[in-house]
Amino acid sequence: MPQYIVSVDAGGTKILAALINSDNKIISQSKKPTDAKNGANAVINRIIECIESTLIDSKVKANQLAAIVVGIPGSLNSQKGIVYLAPNLSWRNINVVNPIKKHFNIPTFIENDANLGALGIHQFGLGKKYENLLGIFVGTGIGGGLILNNKIYRGKSFAAGEIGHIVIDPKGAKCGCGNFGCFEAIASRTAITREIKNAIKTGKKTVITKLTNDYDMIKSGILAAALQSNDKIVKKSLRSASETIGLVVGNMSNLLDLNAVVLAGGLIEAVGNFMLPVIRKSAEEVALPQNFKGMKILNSSFGDDAALYGGIALAKEVGLF
Amino acid sequence: MPQYIVSVDAGGTKILAALINSDNKIISQSKKPTDAKNGANAVINRIIECIESTLIDSKVKANQLAAIVVGIPGSLNSQKGIVYLAPNLSWRNINVVNPIKKHFNIPTFIENDANLGALGIHQFGLGKKYENLLGIFVGTGIGGGLILNNKIYRGKSFAAGEIGHIVIDPKGAKCGCGNFGCFEAIASRTAITREIKNAIKTGKKTVITKLTNDYDMIKSGILAAALQSNDKIVKKSLRSASETIGLVVGNMSNLLDLNAVVLAGGLIEAVGNFMLPVIRKSAEEVALPQNFKGMKILNSSFGDDAALYGGIALAKEVGLF
Repeated sequence: MPQYIVSVDAGGTKILAALINSDNKIISQSKKPTDAKNGANAVINRIIECIESTLIDSKVKANQLAAIVVGIPGSLNSQKGIVYLAPNLSWRNINVVNPIKKHFNIPTFIENDANLGALGIHQFGLGKKYENLLGIFVGTGIGGGLILNNKIYRGKSFAAGEIGHIVIDPKGAKCGCGNFGCFEAIASRTAITREIKNAIKTGKKTVITKLTNDYDMIKSGILAAALQSNDKIVKKSLRSASETIGLVVGNMSNLLDLNAVVLAGGLIEAVGNFMLPVIRKSAEEVALPQNFKGMKILNSSFGDDAALYGGIALAKEVGLF
Repeated sequence: MPQYIVSVDAGGTKILAALINSDNKIISQSKKPTDAKNGANAVINRIIECIESTLIDSKVKANQLAAIVVGIPGSLNSQKGIVYLAPNLSWRNINVVNPIKKHFNIPTFIENDANLGALGIHQFGLGKKYENLLGIFVGTGIGGGLILNNKIYRGKSFAAGEIGHIVIDPKGAKCGCGNFGCFEAIASRTAITREIKNAIKTGKKTVITKLTNDYDMIKSGILAAALQSNDKIVKKSLRSASETIGLVVGNMSNLLDLNAVVLAGGLIEAVGNFMLPVIRKSAEEVALPQNFKGMKILNSSFGDDAALYGGIALAKEVGLF
């Protein structure tokens, strides 16, 4: 009887694989850079290497695996095993499942990483399963995962949850997707970095200039350090992003009458303590009282592991674990 | 064996009741003004009178009814039978189900009217059941009903679908709910009326001044007549409202990857032919290609009857018809 699964998070910068036992515990991990520039086959081989590493490290054999689940930052068809579009991996119409399945001869599944993250948080991250939950992952972009009636809500073509591309302000900044004023163009770490860079350009004083020379993508840790120094410029842009996030959270409450909204991702992990009170206040201003009442706005303590835990939940959902 | 149901739409201005047979055909109808100013009991009595009228007209006895379903324009708990808040009826915490059930001794259900409308359109209005469907009802306000995975999506407290109160522009016009820039404050018939009234005030020429003296709520029929006269002012405000509706439709596509969005309500019935192409174009600009592909944007031919048909579907959902 297979007793383990491997859950993989294949991100734009790194691949993270975890071997998980029947107590839902991670017993070994493996991490490699993604190196997406070498093409899809190279990335898939690296995913296979990561999976093998976790097996070797813990002396588990492949035939002891019940399933392999891989989270991908893109739109995909989880039934066909095909990734339609994953901009961070430069993938278009790539079958990820077949080569992995062929190599290990184990049932293999792919799922959007934000969906998996939301599912992981829903099942294992909060001490309670909130029936209708939205996960918002704020980092270089903004991802979203919807759990409705306790299940991933995928939509007609597995592309639901693209909250980062709802347009907030048609006159706003240009987004990577080509549109203007998308949520992620206004409130991601990329947007915050842009604002701070502009402030520096116009001669505003900020501790950021002492903490880094790279103003093109200011890391979350640097923002956290600047916050500790009570830096006004950093506080202002974090507050502004938080207000926009709060507006979206309030709107989602009105539309979906959610039990919980969970904020996660690198930026929230680093400076969530500053952002969450602003997000809550701004959401309350927008939400209808009936909808806001009883809705939790939380941050996730899972960090990078949310999607890995989502893999466990997905394997259970399909009855393999 | 009960062979009939009565489906009631209790709106802000009129109560409409329909007796429906097992072929899903309306065999008699009754209509009365709501007269909400006389209080909740008077309205409930009038609902009972309407139901009785449909029975008398068709010589059907109450014990031949399988169920009574009442659509209410407000937030409510369909399990407890209580309307929490229905601004158009001036109701707060009113138990509607008990008095009706007591009178007829028949299982009685209430549901939000936009939810019922969306369900009616989903089940009977399109010749095909779209798995994930959003109904947008544009009239004096904007209501929304979500069908996800072929069922009404209600949320944690039965208040989901309040699409009229998602905030589009925090600097926009004041909404009846107290917020600023809600969808319905920007794109409803009320908003269109306000724009036209302002244009008239500033001396702009429009055929509206010849068609009506009442610029406080210009009826949909008047707007349709002005459109036939190719009136520039009316066209401009309808186009602007349609662009906002399209933005919301595009955003909903990105978030929910819907199979269909159905526009309905008085304004769409009257001038939908003008509005829909603008809505489609504006939605396509906002939606991600993967999500927009295969999503239908339709108008409903049901008119006032959408919620009545929703009542049939609800009675079937609970296994009583």
